[in-house]
Amino acid sequence: MAITESPSLPDFLIALAHHMAETSGLILRRYFRTPMTVDRKTDLSPVTIADREAECVMRELLHSTVPTHGMIGEEYGSENISAEWVWVLDPIDGTKAFITGKPSFSTLIGLAWRGRPVLGIIDQPITGERWIGGSGLPAQLNGQPIHVRLCDGLENACLYATDPDMFCHSAASQAVWQRLEKAVALRRFGADSYAYGLLAAGFIDLVYECQLQVYDHLPVTAVVEAAGGVVSKTDGKKASLASNVCVLAAGDRRVHECALALLKTEDR
Amino acid sequence: MAITESPSLPDFLIALAHHMAETSGLILRRYFRTPMTVDRKTDLSPVTIADREAECVMRELLHSTVPTHGMIGEEYGSENISAEWVWVLDPIDGTKAFITGKPSFSTLIGLAWRGRPVLGIIDQPITGERWIGGSGLPAQLNGQPIHVRLCDGLENACLYATDPDMFCHSAASQAVWQRLEKAVALRRFGADSYAYGLLAAGFIDLVYECQLQVYDHLPVTAVVEAAGGVVSKTDGKKASLASNVCVLAAGDRRVHECALALLKTEDR
Repeated sequence: MAITESPSLPDFLIALAHHMAETSGLILRRYFRTPMTVDRKTDLSPVTIADREAECVMRELLHSTVPTHGMIGEEYGSENISAEWVWVLDPIDGTKAFITGKPSFSTLIGLAWRGRPVLGIIDQPITGERWIGGSGLPAQLNGQPIHVRLCDGLENACLYATDPDMFCHSAASQAVWQRLEKAVALRRFGADSYAYGLLAAGFIDLVYECQLQVYDHLPVTAVVEAAGGVVSKTDGKKASLASNVCVLAAGDRRVHECALALLKTEDR
Repeated sequence: MAITESPSLPDFLIALAHHMAETSGLILRRYFRTPMTVDRKTDLSPVTIADREAECVMRELLHSTVPTHGMIGEEYGSENISAEWVWVLDPIDGTKAFITGKPSFSTLIGLAWRGRPVLGIIDQPITGERWIGGSGLPAQLNGQPIHVRLCDGLENACLYATDPDMFCHSAASQAVWQRLEKAVALRRFGADSYAYGLLAAGFIDLVYECQLQVYDHLPVTAVVEAAGGVVSKTDGKKASLASNVCVLAAGDRRVHECALALLKTEDR
């Protein structure tokens, strides 16, 4: 199921997104598993020269090719976000994996039209995997069509989340998470946004994560929706350009509803 | 630092171990990301036809080439374990990753001489990464020499463990784990035995895991020791052929001692 109620996506924007992923990937492959200074941001999350260079080259590409578009990036902030088209960039989603030599991080590239995700890329430049999907663009993994799988209830579901610390911001959040992880057939940590690619390709059923910023969820939402899945906040509404949100992604609408029913009891 | 006090390892056993990894890898690549029935073992852990076929072909290779050797495998148990040479096989370490399409599982192949690890392979057949190391065989990743990195204390250490559930078997174990994860600079879950490869190659500093069987720890111990690292139980002694143990691996002896000091307060 492709995203509805959006304009047809110009081919040149899809080509531009691919080119951005390739350019970012060149930089990440050059730095991966080499000695690097790891700086701490104000939220204490790690950042490296690789994060910064990769975002820089993507922003330069946008400035030179689509100067009227807006952009939001993890490392260099927002520009012109009242524009109709806004790009959303996370040069390394999973910097902790990146700095420990584990190829489960991704470059996330999203495009929003009037606040709605219309294009997303999840690019893993070490394993050479690229997921893409969007409005009128059925989801693909390395050019092959992909689709979410069926899952009729939590007791049959495989659930991923990046890290248990995501749910430590409140006792209520932690309790809700514990209910969810106990209700599913299998729960795993440590995949970062690669998990949304696994969901879009029909290998898992649920991803639930908190404290997400727009550059964490908007690109993966476009991919998952284009693969037939559903992504929402815990109130069931779309996350759009919101940040600091909890996001629930599911391959099958039925398991999404079951999980939402468990989650929405949280006081937030 | 290579392992000491062991016989020189015949080249043909090293070649045999490589051949076993290649043969197992052919099977795992064939099944990876295809629909598979997932059975549950008596301990409720998942197992697939891929686990079973991969262990079978490795055992057949051992039977036909080194019939006097013993073997211990995750899926098909022990044979002739009083032999001087005993092979230790885990066809898929990280079956939960395997069945969810995530290439962080490994095939583990170990060889013990009189109970001591003298050869180990960590093989990731999807990313094409193979770690090897042993007695008189300095550690390598895809043929390139590797070495652990320096780390003088917990406050600078990167720590991996497969899953927090490993520490849920007792309140004491959980408390010890929480002290350890709070003491380090970075803690990540979800790498399975790939984490020991990252440690041997100098990208992380510590792996701490509980409820390990001999096929989980013996192969990775050979690789880590051959890369200059140190692996022990929480009492500081070698795990040898023991099962149901907690194992602490470190790149630098100093951080191993700091972590042991934290851990050994546990009542066990």
